[in-house]
Amino acid sequence: MAWPNRRFLDLVGTEVPIVQAPMAGAGGVDLCVGAIEGGALGSLPCGLLTPDEVRAQVSAVRERVRGPINLNFFCHTMPEGGDEAPWKALLRPYYDEFGVAPGPPGPLRMPFDPAMCGIVEEVRPEVVSFHFGLPSEELLRRVKASGAVVIGNATTPEEARWLEARGVDAVIAQGFEAGGHSGRFLGSDPAAALGLIALLPQVVDSVSVPVIAAGGIGDGRGIAAAFALGASAVQLGTAYLHCPESLIRPEHRAVLAEGGTLFTNLFSGGLARGAPTRLVRDLGPVRAEVPPYPLAAAALAPLKNVSGFTPMWAGQSAPLGRALPAAELTRSLAADALAVLGRLS
Amino acid sequence: MAWPNRRFLDLVGTEVPIVQAPMAGAGGVDLCVGAIEGGALGSLPCGLLTPDEVRAQVSAVRERVRGPINLNFFCHTMPEGGDEAPWKALLRPYYDEFGVAPGPPGPLRMPFDPAMCGIVEEVRPEVVSFHFGLPSEELLRRVKASGAVVIGNATTPEEARWLEARGVDAVIAQGFEAGGHSGRFLGSDPAAALGLIALLPQVVDSVSVPVIAAGGIGDGRGIAAAFALGASAVQLGTAYLHCPESLIRPEHRAVLAEGGTLFTNLFSGGLARGAPTRLVRDLGPVRAEVPPYPLAAAALAPLKNVSGFTPMWAGQSAPLGRALPAAELTRSLAADALAVLGRLS
Repeated sequence: MAWPNRRFLDLVGTEVPIVQAPMAGAGGVDLCVGAIEGGALGSLPCGLLTPDEVRAQVSAVRERVRGPINLNFFCHTMPEGGDEAPWKALLRPYYDEFGVAPGPPGPLRMPFDPAMCGIVEEVRPEVVSFHFGLPSEELLRRVKASGAVVIGNATTPEEARWLEARGVDAVIAQGFEAGGHSGRFLGSDPAAALGLIALLPQVVDSVSVPVIAAGGIGDGRGIAAAFALGASAVQLGTAYLHCPESLIRPEHRAVLAEGGTLFTNLFSGGLARGAPTRLVRDLGPVRAEVPPYPLAAAALAPLKNVSGFTPMWAGQSAPLGRALPAAELTRSLAADALAVLGRLS
Repeated sequence: MAWPNRRFLDLVGTEVPIVQAPMAGAGGVDLCVGAIEGGALGSLPCGLLTPDEVRAQVSAVRERVRGPINLNFFCHTMPEGGDEAPWKALLRPYYDEFGVAPGPPGPLRMPFDPAMCGIVEEVRPEVVSFHFGLPSEELLRRVKASGAVVIGNATTPEEARWLEARGVDAVIAQGFEAGGHSGRFLGSDPAAALGLIALLPQVVDSVSVPVIAAGGIGDGRGIAAAFALGASAVQLGTAYLHCPESLIRPEHRAVLAEGGTLFTNLFSGGLARGAPTRLVRDLGPVRAEVPPYPLAAAALAPLKNVSGFTPMWAGQSAPLGRALPAAELTRSLAADALAVLGRLS
């Protein structure tokens, strides 16, 4: 049995064409190590880390396993600080209920910057992936000069062409089924978000670089389907949330089997898919009062350890997942996909 | 080359595991005949027809081609006539702009009833499919006693189990990518609508009858992907809209390549996917003022020939379509799918 498309394998040098999705807040050293041990491209989500933390986590992975590492960064433009009053007014009953006060804002998701680029040049990851577009031309040039394969994330064929024109080596086609933040960055209408089965062939037809399918792929059948649609690899996040190495809380782990995920802007200001929590049920998933990404998170910080007020990101195939260690899950997913592919012709 | 799953072929007796979707308003005798000539299951949308019209259309198809026919009916519950005033107030500026007056309501989509059931018993279609659930136990019993294979439409695993428990012979898994009306009937949250790549394996795991994949399948790659996910057949609507036999207006045909489809409740009161029109752009796609399905259509009737005020239903793979005659399209889709499947292992 062989993979029907080897473009990603040849580009990155992994054993299997699977990317363990970064997942800020849920991924980390243990999950990355397990995915690499299983033959996948392991990822470290760096969007919430300091440069020193990135250096330390890469060292920790390198000490435990050999294989390509992907560092993932955000590339959003930080908005002007807007009017937080309407959002805090919506949250006021919860501050009162739980006896907390809106304090000084905690750390926010920050975009990739020259300091972080210096760490990339120092630790030399095999792959760097970006969410919400790409960094400046100068920073992107430095990342490429470091030797890293660069991957961008597209939610439309237009975004895929934009990324390819700026020199990425591969494009993720992120279907609307994906858990966590949609990487949408060119202003397409969220109401027109594309499902993976429609998005993927349109992206494959739009670019010449290898395409990595993401969103709603839950098991070997989904991986095989992605290859049928023209993908060279798949990126799985939610499947890895079930692993004991993921950093999610027990409440989050328990809710994965229930499905019913939806997009909400309440937790960060950006649209992200997750299980409906009390906050989402009370206010409705999308509210105009919420400040733009990533500012909304600040006013929620005092409630971050309260059940129902912390996001529980998950994609639409969460009910298909199995609680296996990441290395075993990776090998099992690859074997299942090859078995499905073998039965198709 | 052989199809990797023959359960639908064995059940229905077609040459290829493709269902030409009914598409009320766009399908008809010519499209049905072409699809059957190409080896697919041809469908006649009957939800807007009188019993006499159904009889006449079935005769017209039978005179021109041999092969299984699917008659499609709606099974919604007609709502009480609600307050139309807020909806007519929203439309008032358009009545004024185009010099029309809200008149008596035109014909509305009607659910399957005893008179229509009598026609089924008379014309004996090989297949009957239902949208928005199923008819009463008594009517369903009569349809099955006529010898028809019965197909139901599910948008969630729960709906699929509900349909199987009531005796359907096959289930359509309708992904949110599908054009036209979502068949959602058990009250699931529209914000949690599932993309096909997530829905299909969850439905396949939930029922023992063959599953027909629908939504966002645009070409041979999508058909192959559906088989990888466990489907026994596919139902394609938008791909057939491009055919010269479809009854859509030139304006609708021209907009298919643009994509950007979204769900709107403005045209019927029910959520349906189509290209954004002026009405959708002006009012926003989903408005609370709109009466429940199918009542909203009545107030729009005076504007039905005005560009921008008539729905242009289409699914998310509309840009992948090709303007081939239906028989040739069917043969080409099947050959392409088999070629993709052959390259996968």
